[in-house]
Amino acid sequence: MIVVNFKAYSESAGERGVKIAKICEKVALESKKEIIVCPQTPDLSLISKEVSIPVFSQHIDPVEPGSRTGHITLESVKRYVSGTLINHSEKRMKIADIDYIVKKCRKNGIKSIVCTNNVSVSMACSVLDPDYIAIEPPELIGGDISVTSASPEIVENAVKNIKKINPSVKVLCGAGIKTGEDVKKAIELGAEGVLLASGVVKAKDPEKVLMDLTHY
Amino acid sequence: MIVVNFKAYSESAGERGVKIAKICEKVALESKKEIIVCPQTPDLSLISKEVSIPVFSQHIDPVEPGSRTGHITLESVKRYVSGTLINHSEKRMKIADIDYIVKKCRKNGIKSIVCTNNVSVSMACSVLDPDYIAIEPPELIGGDISVTSASPEIVENAVKNIKKINPSVKVLCGAGIKTGEDVKKAIELGAEGVLLASGVVKAKDPEKVLMDLTHY
Amino acid sequence: MIVVNFKAYSESAGERGVKIAKICEKVALESKKEIIVCPQTPDLSLISKEVSIPVFSQHIDPVEPGSRTGHITLESVKRYVSGTLINHSEKRMKIADIDYIVKKCRKNGIKSIVCTNNVSVSMACSVLDPDYIAIEPPELIGGDISVTSASPEIVENAVKNIKKINPSVKVLCGAGIKTGEDVKKAIELGAEGVLLASGVVKAKDPEKVLMDLTHY
Amino acid sequence: MIVVNFKAYSESAGERGVKIAKICEKVALESKKEIIVCPQTPDLSLISKEVSIPVFSQHIDPVEPGSRTGHITLESVKRYVSGTLINHSEKRMKIADIDYIVKKCRKNGIKSIVCTNNVSVSMACSVLDPDYIAIEPPELIGGDISVTSASPEIVENAVKNIKKINPSVKVLCGAGIKTGEDVKKAIELGAEGVLLASGVVKAKDPEKVLMDLTHY
Repeated sequence: MIVVNFKAYSESAGERGVKIAKICEKVALESKKEIIVCPQTPDLSLISKEVSIPVFSQHIDPVEPGSRTGHITLESVKRYVSGTLINHSEKRMKIADIDYIVKKCRKNGIKSIVCTNNVSVSMACSVLDPDYIAIEPPELIGGDISVTSASPEIVENAVKNIKKINPSVKVLCGAGIKTGEDVKKAIELGAEGVLLASGVVKAKDPEKVLMDLTHY
Repeated sequence: MIVVNFKAYSESAGERGVKIAKICEKVALESKKEIIVCPQTPDLSLISKEVSIPVFSQHIDPVEPGSRTGHITLESVKRYVSGTLINHSEKRMKIADIDYIVKKCRKNGIKSIVCTNNVSVSMACSVLDPDYIAIEPPELIGGDISVTSASPEIVENAVKNIKKINPSVKVLCGAGIKTGEDVKKAIELGAEGVLLASGVVKAKDPEKVLMDLTHY
Repeated sequence: MIVVNFKAYSESAGERGVKIAKICEKVALESKKEIIVCPQTPDLSLISKEVSIPVFSQHIDPVEPGSRTGHITLESVKRYVSGTLINHSEKRMKIADIDYIVKKCRKNGIKSIVCTNNVSVSMACSVLDPDYIAIEPPELIGGDISVTSASPEIVENAVKNIKKINPSVKVLCGAGIKTGEDVKKAIELGAEGVLLASGVVKAKDPEKVLMDLTHY
Repeated sequence: MIVVNFKAYSESAGERGVKIAKICEKVALESKKEIIVCPQTPDLSLISKEVSIPVFSQHIDPVEPGSRTGHITLESVKRYVSGTLINHSEKRMKIADIDYIVKKCRKNGIKSIVCTNNVSVSMACSVLDPDYIAIEPPELIGGDISVTSASPEIVENAVKNIKKINPSVKVLCGAGIKTGEDVKKAIELGAEGVLLASGVVKAKDPEKVLMDLTHY
């Protein structure tokens, strides 16, 4: 499973985002691997109509529908997405709010990926019973070395310890992932997939990168 | 000028939002008054395609495009909107960030409506040279009494003092606005329009309410 | 163990805080029970000199010493306190920051009390290995009914489940605690103490209330 | 007027803070210049007793006394300080909150220094009628070049434009200030004083630096 986070890159906004999403869809169909896209929030209604692969949101605010100008409720995205990132390193949340959103996602049939920064936080969040924990060591995010090369023991320990606490939680890893080799290594370390962003979105040839990523 | 803020109401999400936006468009065309809609962020790409009246966003985060997962950049909404609310009472911002966003809006041809809570903050924000200041006394927001009835002197003072500091800033008022009579009074007090939300979005018959609002 | 949170009450600031702290000390010595005081931050240097019982801070910001105007570092309070509240319901923190502060406390010999709102968040935070988890259901905080009467099952479940995950974590409970009877019940439910605020600080006769609280 | 911000430096905490505050007092008395110290919050009760020069707090939270664990109210610091920094670049605040705190300071006889990042924000904040605006261009903070050398026009423009809006507001400037020459230049540019931190707090010989600073 490959989760492509569009972040707030210029390269992934509007029609450029549609184009990347369609490339993701094409490669997913050809490779028979699961690829998930996380478009920018204002593009959710646009991109969700254009592709058949799963669309996730990048964030959901921990609030109910109502007088909440400028907030992103689960209710406002659920017609466009089948899952969401939660607590991304660029949008950290309070623990009580992560708990609230994970429960709300489960109740609404929305898949939850809780992003974490280290093994202890990963274990803590796995108690909250999300569908996925995505561990991304902050010092490696946006860098050139894959977490699977730089810190394989972090991924391995995260998987081992998360499973001890909550065997039903699946583990993803991220930070510096760029090649099929990185994905292969992630899976060998016990992860069920990867989370990446610039490696695809800012690539000169995203299709080529994605084809490589799916050959693991 | 009537600005309809969709907030995060259930009644304004997705297809229900499209429906309200189309009613706003219809009444705008019939009445020849300017009506602006502020849809929920995930609906921006959807609703902006469906109507010809101006679409504004409810909020823009004070960040540049890049590694900003879950943030709403001006660049990500500008293909869908011609303006934005800034510093709404439900999404207050830091002064340096209001300054940053107002300047960025002007540079990008996006109209800016800075929301404020009292006369002194309205005056302060008018220094930053937005297109509009929308004053909404917090104690009256969501209530049954219009600001123009409950506190006409606040609107009058805001207009007078804002114009002294920056004559090119236009003034809107909000809180409790529900009828054409309220709009008429707002204009008599020197405002150039109103900002409202539940009065339209949660109305049993939004078209009837809007028709009344435009008869001032 | 009784933790008295001074909050930001007028009744606990400055000399009035010193007076309450001294009453806590007196009752602790007489009753031979452990009473901990959490003064307001600007009073820490004052109150810590005046009493021999443990003084805890109400909050620590997740930052290192340096260019951090207006932030409360562990380093700035550690000469005055032997422990701290973390993630109080009135000062919620991000999960990565709770993890950071708990680890930093342990390294510096500062006791950590992580406040939580429900059983799942309590379990999650117990993974982070603080000295104490203090569970306080938000709907009961500041109310007239003790958590031990209103929701004894929450305390019981919290204790049971926290111990399963991390047997070395001790459990406190709070919300509506006012009498020795409440403390007794808390202990019967498996807690090792209570966290309270207005029940002591805003009492007409704090000494009388504290004497009662220690008779369990 | 020289305002020494202790920030959260190790060099200014506890007894080391007392020592720096006493040096400031000594130089103030000898030079007959006004020097103000802004200690770390937990040291306020300690340092305010040790020196006769004005003590200001680094920050005040925009809340009233009450159930506000971990917050710094004006009421909790006013027995220790005669003024406060507001909206420091390391602790930015919402515009409505700056307005609230400035008004509350005036009502309570506490001097207010609102920190700002550029000319337009300085002008906006001067509308709120604080005692001082302290302009500090963020790109120069903590650097080696004084704002008075690097961007004299910013200081000059700030003074000119602030006075136009509110002649009773006094202007300070900060960022890179290290010598009496910098202070002299600040005054020539129309400022009434400077705000500095590391230049004094992290100096090998703070007394010597302060003596130089007061020779303008």
